[in-house]
Amino acid sequence: MERGKRTVTSSVVPLISLLTDFGLMDPYVAEMKAIILAICPSARIIDISHLVEKFNVRMGAFLLASTTPSFPTGTVHLAVVDPGVGSARRPIAVETERSLFVGPDNGLLVPAAQPESILHVYEVTNRLMMREKVSATFHGRDIFSSIAAHLACGSPPKELGREITDYVIPSYTQPKLDGKAVLCEVSYVDGFGNIITNLKSEQVSEFNITVSEGLVISVGKKRFSGRYVKTYSDLRENDFGLLVGSHGFLEIACREKSAAKRIGARNGMRVRVSGA
Amino acid sequence: MERGKRTVTSSVVPLISLLTDFGLMDPYVAEMKAIILAICPSARIIDISHLVEKFNVRMGAFLLASTTPSFPTGTVHLAVVDPGVGSARRPIAVETERSLFVGPDNGLLVPAAQPESILHVYEVTNRLMMREKVSATFHGRDIFSSIAAHLACGSPPKELGREITDYVIPSYTQPKLDGKAVLCEVSYVDGFGNIITNLKSEQVSEFNITVSEGLVISVGKKRFSGRYVKTYSDLRENDFGLLVGSHGFLEIACREKSAAKRIGARNGMRVRVSGA
Amino acid sequence: MERGKRTVTSSVVPLISLLTDFGLMDPYVAEMKAIILAICPSARIIDISHLVEKFNVRMGAFLLASTTPSFPTGTVHLAVVDPGVGSARRPIAVETERSLFVGPDNGLLVPAAQPESILHVYEVTNRLMMREKVSATFHGRDIFSSIAAHLACGSPPKELGREITDYVIPSYTQPKLDGKAVLCEVSYVDGFGNIITNLKSEQVSEFNITVSEGLVISVGKKRFSGRYVKTYSDLRENDFGLLVGSHGFLEIACREKSAAKRIGARNGMRVRVSGA
Repeated sequence: MERGKRTVTSSVVPLISLLTDFGLMDPYVAEMKAIILAICPSARIIDISHLVEKFNVRMGAFLLASTTPSFPTGTVHLAVVDPGVGSARRPIAVETERSLFVGPDNGLLVPAAQPESILHVYEVTNRLMMREKVSATFHGRDIFSSIAAHLACGSPPKELGREITDYVIPSYTQPKLDGKAVLCEVSYVDGFGNIITNLKSEQVSEFNITVSEGLVISVGKKRFSGRYVKTYSDLRENDFGLLVGSHGFLEIACREKSAAKRIGARNGMRVRVSGA
Repeated sequence: MERGKRTVTSSVVPLISLLTDFGLMDPYVAEMKAIILAICPSARIIDISHLVEKFNVRMGAFLLASTTPSFPTGTVHLAVVDPGVGSARRPIAVETERSLFVGPDNGLLVPAAQPESILHVYEVTNRLMMREKVSATFHGRDIFSSIAAHLACGSPPKELGREITDYVIPSYTQPKLDGKAVLCEVSYVDGFGNIITNLKSEQVSEFNITVSEGLVISVGKKRFSGRYVKTYSDLRENDFGLLVGSHGFLEIACREKSAAKRIGARNGMRVRVSGA
Repeated sequence: MERGKRTVTSSVVPLISLLTDFGLMDPYVAEMKAIILAICPSARIIDISHLVEKFNVRMGAFLLASTTPSFPTGTVHLAVVDPGVGSARRPIAVETERSLFVGPDNGLLVPAAQPESILHVYEVTNRLMMREKVSATFHGRDIFSSIAAHLACGSPPKELGREITDYVIPSYTQPKLDGKAVLCEVSYVDGFGNIITNLKSEQVSEFNITVSEGLVISVGKKRFSGRYVKTYSDLRENDFGLLVGSHGFLEIACREKSAAKRIGARNGMRVRVSGA
């Protein structure tokens, strides 16, 4: 991490992103923000999402990794999807070349941090970085928000606790060749019903997918044909298409309709793409 | 536009409003905000709504036009309901006497801009106002947010591109007389179930609606009687009433109940109001 | 209230919290925020919740009272759940030892204000603190937001109107002993399905609940056994447990499942807890 650069940015306008599975009805997100502004009143907070499926660490990790590249250098990313709250799982902070990440050590942060080059990972044990009274059930408020606020306002990460190397690294399935087809899976179904796969656009040529007019796509047990297009409006009504989405992953779409609903696609399903 | 005034306001606290059909689960809104704060770190952002029905330009236009009168002079309104993303439809910026509007040229911005007196409309072609890499599927992040941030931080609108006059002006049905009744339609059903029509309170006298105790109202095929009241709590339980809503339109309400659910009203339905 | 302290805090970064039953689709919340920033451009706004059940003053009061202890001294809490808008119910401002509260006089503010020690309650009549034109149906925008913004930017509360003592104090059921059991009720079911009761952890010893391995819990007509645990992950899969939640109330939980759904619990239901 370019320490000088981060410090300068954050001394001007400290920026914190926030991702949880806390939903939008309950008071939990507001409590986290209140703690942040009590510690670091000048911090700006951007909500990434609070509608991560409850306890779905993988979905949280996907959303976080999708969003972080758009943030400026020096951002503190605070993420809490934490089924193990109050148990032995460790609170960690990850320092990369351009950001800091704060959250539980359960694989939530690493997919977003890795592409930014991880420099250090700290187990947070310094009680001065936490709320005076720490509850057993809400570390998002009592531990993580407080850490993020201190970091955003300039506390050096190395004061959080000892450096560790045995943090949880999630192992997700990678796309692979199957004869002339590519096997990958559904990373995420977005609110438009676009089916986002884990196949990077760079891998398309690597995998020799024939980018022709006709493609055969299988999602779960459904099989259908589609075209390779540049954007949604290139599709004819009711046609399926494959395109490179805005995060660089291949996605299956249907013009102004939910491709996921028509196909019955859900996160984690297997996807197979081949020439016609 | 009073340029001096806007510049002063925006140099103190640049203010951007944000309306999309992106929903609240996906990372898209956060990416737009991240781009904004990377370019214009002092900008304040107010979310108008991200729950516009997908691709429903008219609903987006209604919500935008309802909200903008409450904003201070100098606000930059950023709105993205954009079924034609990546196609030939143009990115535009609209300069009025009190605000700037940024979004696709599909009729989304004009109903909000017109009452503020449109001074200039620009087709945005200046690549320096956009993100370096522009995707084909997410102009909200790569084009519109970047433009809005530059404008909020003081870039002059005329640097965006050439002035145009052939921008899309949506043509919506206007209320009209039908014998002694007024024909109008449902502009919007709000979360309380209030049925907001496109009939302005000023038009009531113009149309000679007898503001008496008894009114006959038809919505779609449902016909019922109601009273003209000042506020919701003036209604007796289960009674329907007609009142002037907070944006100056006539609305049909039911005390602490959803009038829309009871009547089966939806956006766009025909409404007929007459004396009993 | 430590006047000096509040003034100092609020002159640096005025902080306003916002709670309504307006939902997230409609333009209403954005209009309130626009009015706030027009009057007090430096104010920071934290949304507590806009998903309070429509007209459910008690649910709003619970959420407000849960969240306010996390906020810094000097915060202005603006809350609008207001079935009586436009009627004779009074707009009030409550000054406590550490915050200010603004909203309708219907019991919404008092449960949050009482634990902070109420110093003064004002009926707001000063028209200079309101919007020039006040609608009959949206006091959240035309009265309450304006008041909150003026207070956040330093207007003294006593300029709002005359002090009153006959403000509405809601009377909610308190937990009580029933033989060897404790009778309490469901205050709130959160988004995780945790059933939060109105029984404070301090009252547990007072009521002599045997904190043993085995407890018998009844919610409504459902009866089941559970354990007393420290945190959610201490529970075995599918087991029910009783624990002290993050706001100090006893709650009934089920590991990574919705206890409320399994039991059919809703706000207001009777709860009975006894030893096995």
